[in-house]
Amino acid sequence: MPDLAPDELIRRTLAGERVSLARALSWVENEHPHASALLDACFGRTGRAFRIGITGPPGAGKSTLVTELAKEYRARGETVAVVAVDPTSPFSGGALLGDRVRMHALSGDDGVFIRSMATRGSMGGLAVHTAQACDVLDAAGFDRILIETVGVGQSELEVAQTADSTAVVLVPESGDAVQAMKAGLMEIADLFVINKSDREGADRAAQAIRSALHLRARVSEWTIPVMLAAASLGRGVPELVQAFERHLEWLTATGTLEGRRRQRLEQTLVALVRERLWEDFRSQVPEGAWRQALAALAERRETPNRLSERLVRDTHPTAEPRGQRQPQPAKNPAD
Amino acid sequence: MPDLAPDELIRRTLAGERVSLARALSWVENEHPHASALLDACFGRTGRAFRIGITGPPGAGKSTLVTELAKEYRARGETVAVVAVDPTSPFSGGALLGDRVRMHALSGDDGVFIRSMATRGSMGGLAVHTAQACDVLDAAGFDRILIETVGVGQSELEVAQTADSTAVVLVPESGDAVQAMKAGLMEIADLFVINKSDREGADRAAQAIRSALHLRARVSEWTIPVMLAAASLGRGVPELVQAFERHLEWLTATGTLEGRRRQRLEQTLVALVRERLWEDFRSQVPEGAWRQALAALAERRETPNRLSERLVRDTHPTAEPRGQRQPQPAKNPAD
Repeated sequence: MPDLAPDELIRRTLAGERVSLARALSWVENEHPHASALLDACFGRTGRAFRIGITGPPGAGKSTLVTELAKEYRARGETVAVVAVDPTSPFSGGALLGDRVRMHALSGDDGVFIRSMATRGSMGGLAVHTAQACDVLDAAGFDRILIETVGVGQSELEVAQTADSTAVVLVPESGDAVQAMKAGLMEIADLFVINKSDREGADRAAQAIRSALHLRARVSEWTIPVMLAAASLGRGVPELVQAFERHLEWLTATGTLEGRRRQRLEQTLVALVRERLWEDFRSQVPEGAWRQALAALAERRETPNRLSERLVRDTHPTAEPRGQRQPQPAKNPAD
Repeated sequence: MPDLAPDELIRRTLAGERVSLARALSWVENEHPHASALLDACFGRTGRAFRIGITGPPGAGKSTLVTELAKEYRARGETVAVVAVDPTSPFSGGALLGDRVRMHALSGDDGVFIRSMATRGSMGGLAVHTAQACDVLDAAGFDRILIETVGVGQSELEVAQTADSTAVVLVPESGDAVQAMKAGLMEIADLFVINKSDREGADRAAQAIRSALHLRARVSEWTIPVMLAAASLGRGVPELVQAFERHLEWLTATGTLEGRRRQRLEQTLVALVRERLWEDFRSQVPEGAWRQALAALAERRETPNRLSERLVRDTHPTAEPRGQRQPQPAKNPAD
């Protein structure tokens, strides 16, 4: 549909039409000029889908688990969108096709939509694009959105925070509580899943996680379940769906859901403002001046601090030099 | 030394005095008001240290390997600084003490300095703080700086890019080439190390990585070595140091080192400018106006795009609305 007008594509996306939806998500991913209009149109219809994050180290069987979760949700009559986030390196930029291939089991069902997303753009772009893609899928009417991340780094933690509820998936071998703590997983998990639980050591791994959780200062009234599953054998999946739904009920009843979503909106706003500020700045600095500044830096004639200060002051004459400003009562909410 | 004047502390840091150095690094980590002066003073003396990144999944034995590498470098007469980067979650903010404890083996040697760093501040802050800490250690006169990261996420890739040379550490079980590709490790590795090579499958893992590297389009004339090591047994460490030094020679001879360092400087500048722009913006928006904006968002009276646009336009009246600007010839170097 090369000739479809943007408005028509947006209208069809909101109606859940799959080909348009796929293209709309590409707009988001590629920061296409029409992405803003799309997101503006979607925003008012967001907030209905339950967003579930599935994260954990590579090799934990997350894709298989997500596929089985999607099947289970379908069996319960819910429509499901899957967003598989591939944090590929800044050097390549392409999403691996593996997940899409593995998701083959779900194809042919109109109540399921699967999308892989790659990292692109500036720092923090992954979390922003993922949240925007979820907004589009939410507005398109999907009941449940499963967000799958690869790896356990800082960016994955940021992606996990775009979800309403997050499960950390480990395997018996990676279940070591110390490693999970190291990777910061303890703090983002609403649920733990020991996947591939047919392997030896699953009970021991679950127990180690439970002990570590027990030692930790309690941060909320939600008791984090540690569940066993063997997704490739179909085991433990209905129980996991029940646990997510129980968590959703708890989140809603306690007002936690609203709080988390407000926080997420603030993060989105901050990211957009920062990006916009940078774009405005960059459009005001001629390429030659920028090159000269970099050369001064490379030759150590200028320091990064002084140079950044000068460049910002030159473009925004209102900016006061550092040290002469009043103390800030307003806290940076992105900190 | 509570009463030491900032200038004196900076002077002592540059002289390599350890207590001052430790405090100087805390300034960097905590974005202390004196950090800018410190970094300005350090910058002219940077560029001498060889910065080595050690990355890979949790549990690959990176800490032990780094400890052994430090010992080997000391045996060769080089001074060594270790920066252990703990990307803890945004919720906790504290670095784990584990690495410092494990590094006990190195204490008592004045030619070694060890520092753990945690994630703080805004997005991308980890890479920025790490690079700044390395600048301080470089200016303080250390010959080799070992940067150890936990995990294999996007942030770790960014940290790895602050190094001149990066080794990706895997274990026989995690050596699966597909997983390494998934995590984006193939593209940042200058060297691969299969650690814990006394375990079964080390040769097979090394071979899988070599095959994957072979299939890949060659991006430079450097042939990425895939090495075996068993750091806890002291095996393979001298060979690894030799490989790093060979890589340094190659980087220098081909001009790649200079190119990488210029790129790094540009990234630093971009990060500082972005941060400065955000700070200026935030200082111009009263807390009440920000809260009102968020409420409008939560109630869907405003969309994030339109709101960010309006807020930026209000603070910087020069900024042209989107769509009316000329196409940008200057590419965003952070993309």
